[in-house]
Amino acid sequence: MKKHNFSSGPSILPASTIEGAANAVKEWDDFGGLSLIEVSHRSSAFVAVVDEAVQSIKELLNVPSNYDVVFLHGGASLQFCMIPYNLLKEDEKALYLDTGTWSSKAIKEAKLFGDTEVIASSKADNFNHIPTFEINNDDAISYLHITTNNTIYGTQIYQDVDTNVPLIADMSSDIFSRPVDVSKYDIIYAGAQKNLGPAGVSIAIIKQGILGKTARPIPSMLNYQTHIDKDSMFNTPPVFAIYTSLLTLRWLKENGGVEAMKDRNEAKAKLLYDEIDRHPLFEGTANKADRSKMNITFILKDKAFEEAFLALCESKGISGIKGHRSVGGFRASIYNAMSIESVQHLVNCIQEFKG
Amino acid sequence: MKKHNFSSGPSILPASTIEGAANAVKEWDDFGGLSLIEVSHRSSAFVAVVDEAVQSIKELLNVPSNYDVVFLHGGASLQFCMIPYNLLKEDEKALYLDTGTWSSKAIKEAKLFGDTEVIASSKADNFNHIPTFEINNDDAISYLHITTNNTIYGTQIYQDVDTNVPLIADMSSDIFSRPVDVSKYDIIYAGAQKNLGPAGVSIAIIKQGILGKTARPIPSMLNYQTHIDKDSMFNTPPVFAIYTSLLTLRWLKENGGVEAMKDRNEAKAKLLYDEIDRHPLFEGTANKADRSKMNITFILKDKAFEEAFLALCESKGISGIKGHRSVGGFRASIYNAMSIESVQHLVNCIQEFKG
Repeated sequence: MKKHNFSSGPSILPASTIEGAANAVKEWDDFGGLSLIEVSHRSSAFVAVVDEAVQSIKELLNVPSNYDVVFLHGGASLQFCMIPYNLLKEDEKALYLDTGTWSSKAIKEAKLFGDTEVIASSKADNFNHIPTFEINNDDAISYLHITTNNTIYGTQIYQDVDTNVPLIADMSSDIFSRPVDVSKYDIIYAGAQKNLGPAGVSIAIIKQGILGKTARPIPSMLNYQTHIDKDSMFNTPPVFAIYTSLLTLRWLKENGGVEAMKDRNEAKAKLLYDEIDRHPLFEGTANKADRSKMNITFILKDKAFEEAFLALCESKGISGIKGHRSVGGFRASIYNAMSIESVQHLVNCIQEFKG
Repeated sequence: MKKHNFSSGPSILPASTIEGAANAVKEWDDFGGLSLIEVSHRSSAFVAVVDEAVQSIKELLNVPSNYDVVFLHGGASLQFCMIPYNLLKEDEKALYLDTGTWSSKAIKEAKLFGDTEVIASSKADNFNHIPTFEINNDDAISYLHITTNNTIYGTQIYQDVDTNVPLIADMSSDIFSRPVDVSKYDIIYAGAQKNLGPAGVSIAIIKQGILGKTARPIPSMLNYQTHIDKDSMFNTPPVFAIYTSLLTLRWLKENGGVEAMKDRNEAKAKLLYDEIDRHPLFEGTANKADRSKMNITFILKDKAFEEAFLALCESKGISGIKGHRSVGGFRASIYNAMSIESVQHLVNCIQEFKG
C-alpha cells in the first residue's frame, strides 16, 4: 500500500524528485559512470546545477535584480545566529515577533549579539494565533524578524507584512507555497526540508547593500557576503541536497509555479479544515484567522479517542500524523508535494471515525 | 567503460555505499514505502542510524570512553571557527601549524577570536613538506591545531603528534585511513566527503571536560556542547549524508577496519610513488619523508607534455587526475575506497606515457 506522508519535515517530496535523486546517486547522467555524490563540486556539471537552481528560485519567486540567492549549510537554525551576526548593529536593536518554537529559538540567538526586543508574543496562548504588533519608530532598528509559518502550532502569516523597518523572514515551512513580494524583505531564508528538498541545505535571498554595516568581525562561514561572493561554493556545498532541491524546483516550474501551488494548497487546506470544523469529535487548535495552509493542527475533543484515531490512520496508510508534543493531538502537513487525493483520503478517514 | 575516480573530494566511495544510498533514496527498507529523505529525523528508524554510526566510529577508531562523537552540519570549514569559538581562552593563545590551504583558512578564522600564533609554516616552499616545530611552554596555550593531511599539496602528518598542549586535528582527508591514538587529541574533526560519505556533514570526536571554559557567549549551533547534549539532533541533521556515511562505516568494519585500510593504503601509495620515482619524465612534488598516502601529487618535468598525459588518462577512463592550480600537474587521490587495481591502471598509464 502506498503511504500517505503527512510528516512535518523532512517531508513529502514530488515523486519526480525522489526518482531523479535516487538515479543520480546510482549514476549521474551528467557525469557518465560516476555517482552524483563522488564527483567534484567544481565540475562544470555541478556548477551548472547550482546556477540553474539559483536561477529557478529567482524566476519562481520573481526575485528583483537587486537580490542575491545563495545555498547554505546548516539549516535555518544556523541562520538564527547568522542574521544578528550580519545585521544587528551595535547601537541599534532587533525586533522579533514571537510566534512559536522556531521564533523563540531565533530570539535566543539574537540576544547573544545585542539589544533584542520581542514586540509581541502569543506564547501565553500556546502560540495559537499570530499576535498583532506595532513598531515604535523612535528607536534605531536594525530589523524586524518574523517566522511566516509556524510548523508546530499550525499558524501562518499569509500576507506579506508591511513595515518601514528592514524585514527578515524565516520561511522554512512555507516558501514556494504561494507568491510573496520579495521586495518587501531584506532577507528571506528557509531550510530546504519542507517544500524544497532533503535536510542539509538552506537558502537565503538577500537584498544587496544591507551587509557589511556592523563592526563585529564575522567568521567566513557565517558571513552572507562570503557565500554571495563565492556563488555558494566557498567550501564544498551539500551537493546531494542542492541537486535534489533543483529537481523540486524543476517540478515547481513544470506545475505552474507558486501561483498554482497557492491554489492547490488553499484547496487542500480548505478540504481538511472544513471536515475538522464539521466533525463533532474534532476541532482545530489555531485561531481560524491565522490557520496555516501548510500544517493543519487539530485535536480530538476527548483525548481518550486519540489512540484509536492514530490506529485508524495507520491502518489506512497515513504516516506522520501525530501532533507535536507542544500541541498534542494531530498535525497534517500538506506541503506542495502533497496531492489533494491524499488529503481527501485523510478527510475520509476523519469522516469515518466515530470515536 | 568503468571510470577510475581519482577525484580529491567529493570522491570515490565504496560501491556498497553508492548502491545502498541510491536504494534508500528510492525507498528506505526501514521505513517501508517512503524515501529516506522524506521521513522524520526523529523516527526510531533514523535515530537508530545515528546511534549505529556513532557507535561504529567509536569502534573503528578505538575511541576512549571519555570522548563524545557528534555529526555536524557545514563541513570542516565551519569547524575552523567553532574550534576557537569553543576553545580559545581570552587570556591564552592558540598555536597553528601552517601546512597548506586548509590550515591557512583555519588560522584566518582563529585570528577573529584571539591571540593566534603560527608556530611553523612551509608556505615559502609551496607547502611541499611538514615543517618541524617547537612549543614554548612559557605561554598559556589553549591548543595546538594541526591538519594531518594536506589534500592540495600531498603531504601528511602520518604519526600522531606528541605534545603536552591540547591537540586539535583536522583529519578531513585521512580519517579512517589508518589507526590513530585518539587519546592524544582533544578534538579530531573531519568533513565526510573523502573517506566517509557525501559532502554536507562532518564529524567531531571531543574529549569530555574541555568545553565551557571560555567567557564568550557561543551561538547554539556553533557550540559543540549543544550537539553532544542533543545526540547530533539539535536541529534537523543532514539525514542523507549521515545515512550514507553509516553505509561506509559498515563497509569499513566488514573490510578489516582501519588496520586493514592502513595496509591497503600504504600498498597503493607505494605502487604509485615507485612508478613516479622510476619514470624519467615524472616527479613527485612533496618531500619524500612527508608524502601523503591519500593524495599523490606529481608533475611532468616538462610541462609541455601535460595536455598529452591528461588526454591519455581520459582515454583510459581515469577521472579527476588534474592537479590543483596551487601545485599544478597531477593529483591522484587514492582514498580508502580506491582499489589497488585502479591504482595499477593509473601506473600502467604512466608507464605507457612516453611524452
